[in-house]
Amino acid sequence: MASPSRIYTAALVVIGDEILSGRTHDKNIAQVASWLQVQGIRLKEVRVVADDTAAIVEAVNTLRARNDYLFTTGGIGPTHDDITVDAIAEALGVAVIVHPEARTILEGYYETRGGLTEARLRMARTPDGASLIPNRYTGAPGIRCGNVFIMAGVPSITAGMLDALSGKLDGGAPLLSETVGCWVGESEVADLLRETEKTHETCQIGSYPFWAEGKTGANFVIRSVNAKDLASCTRALVQGLNALGKPPVAGGI
Amino acid sequence: MASPSRIYTAALVVIGDEILSGRTHDKNIAQVASWLQVQGIRLKEVRVVADDTAAIVEAVNTLRARNDYLFTTGGIGPTHDDITVDAIAEALGVAVIVHPEARTILEGYYETRGGLTEARLRMARTPDGASLIPNRYTGAPGIRCGNVFIMAGVPSITAGMLDALSGKLDGGAPLLSETVGCWVGESEVADLLRETEKTHETCQIGSYPFWAEGKTGANFVIRSVNAKDLASCTRALVQGLNALGKPPVAGGI
Repeated sequence: MASPSRIYTAALVVIGDEILSGRTHDKNIAQVASWLQVQGIRLKEVRVVADDTAAIVEAVNTLRARNDYLFTTGGIGPTHDDITVDAIAEALGVAVIVHPEARTILEGYYETRGGLTEARLRMARTPDGASLIPNRYTGAPGIRCGNVFIMAGVPSITAGMLDALSGKLDGGAPLLSETVGCWVGESEVADLLRETEKTHETCQIGSYPFWAEGKTGANFVIRSVNAKDLASCTRALVQGLNALGKPPVAGGI
Repeated sequence: MASPSRIYTAALVVIGDEILSGRTHDKNIAQVASWLQVQGIRLKEVRVVADDTAAIVEAVNTLRARNDYLFTTGGIGPTHDDITVDAIAEALGVAVIVHPEARTILEGYYETRGGLTEARLRMARTPDGASLIPNRYTGAPGIRCGNVFIMAGVPSITAGMLDALSGKLDGGAPLLSETVGCWVGESEVADLLRETEKTHETCQIGSYPFWAEGKTGANFVIRSVNAKDLASCTRALVQGLNALGKPPVAGGI
């Protein structure tokens, strides 16, 4: 479904006090970002917000309006602190219903696990008009409402939901990248980087320094939607580093 | 400098295409979040934005206005893709200057490292009116402008800058927490969690499920600024879990 002629964008809202408290290290930003790259969709912005209705509504409404897709993670479980569905229904201006298909899925999942209690039935609640995103691990589905995709907070469950969506969303040409590493202080090659980027119009070069083995190094990531330009820009950078007597390491360090 | 009578809040803006591309896994959210907890400051929101002036300006201006403190990470190195200082000066409506003290620090640092080149001098640029945050690792300082704190993207350098700020910002009573783990599906104890929270007004209970060793478990995190309420709420939850025949694990699983 690729439409190379235009750029598709997405935003992600990570919902959870546990991330903002520092107790849990988020893993969903990186996995959603990597997955979107493969779909040809650019992740433009991420917001991490508290388990707070007003904060969720603001983030969802701002970001769904200015992106092709909006993803959320977190807050769709069975407990009192799971308020994502209600907050997003409020953001969309629709009611919350018990989704018949979700109810059937949960009835099946809990048949041998003690039955569908009131708490578990909470996980069948969706904004009105939603469709479901399969969850192969724990039954409770993700939810799609227009361009809003509501996913789990537990990273392994989110991974399954992303997998179910793979190849199903319209995307553009994927942003390609090459990485070149070098044992050099980035300040020593700042001019080279700027000039190389400037002479390759469709390319951006990012410079990411590090300190390891008692030495200074950096990885340079060249990005473009054009494979030919990417190769040409990478070649120019490699030649430039060699000319400065700083041998590049293909693929990065 | 604690003022227990009011709540101090902060926001964090993570600046970097490398996070949004999924290439680099952010580590600054968790470390800034944990550090703020100790300072008695609540992290209310995080935004991850691209290396894009308009995106940085929007995030910085929205979040500095509604929080006591705003922190940024990323984009303060010597290369062309380091645009944070210029973007924040634009957000604040001030000029960018070469900060004399920063220049002196960098001259000292690079004295034995090839001297202060034009690229390296970029790291002495600050918004007008700024003060510096020491960087014990690589010379190039962090920057404070009013309630905006501009820090490095490399997590180890950011850690040093946070260390330099420790105890120097006004904060309120720290949010205390206790964790209770249990080998139970959270849906089985949803009522207990809701009721326990409801009867302990100053406390919030977060429920974080996981799947391990082929079993379902959850950690319940009780938070309060009041140590006595926290202890009482934790005790009530432990008693409730025991009464359901689900032995709690103090400190979490």
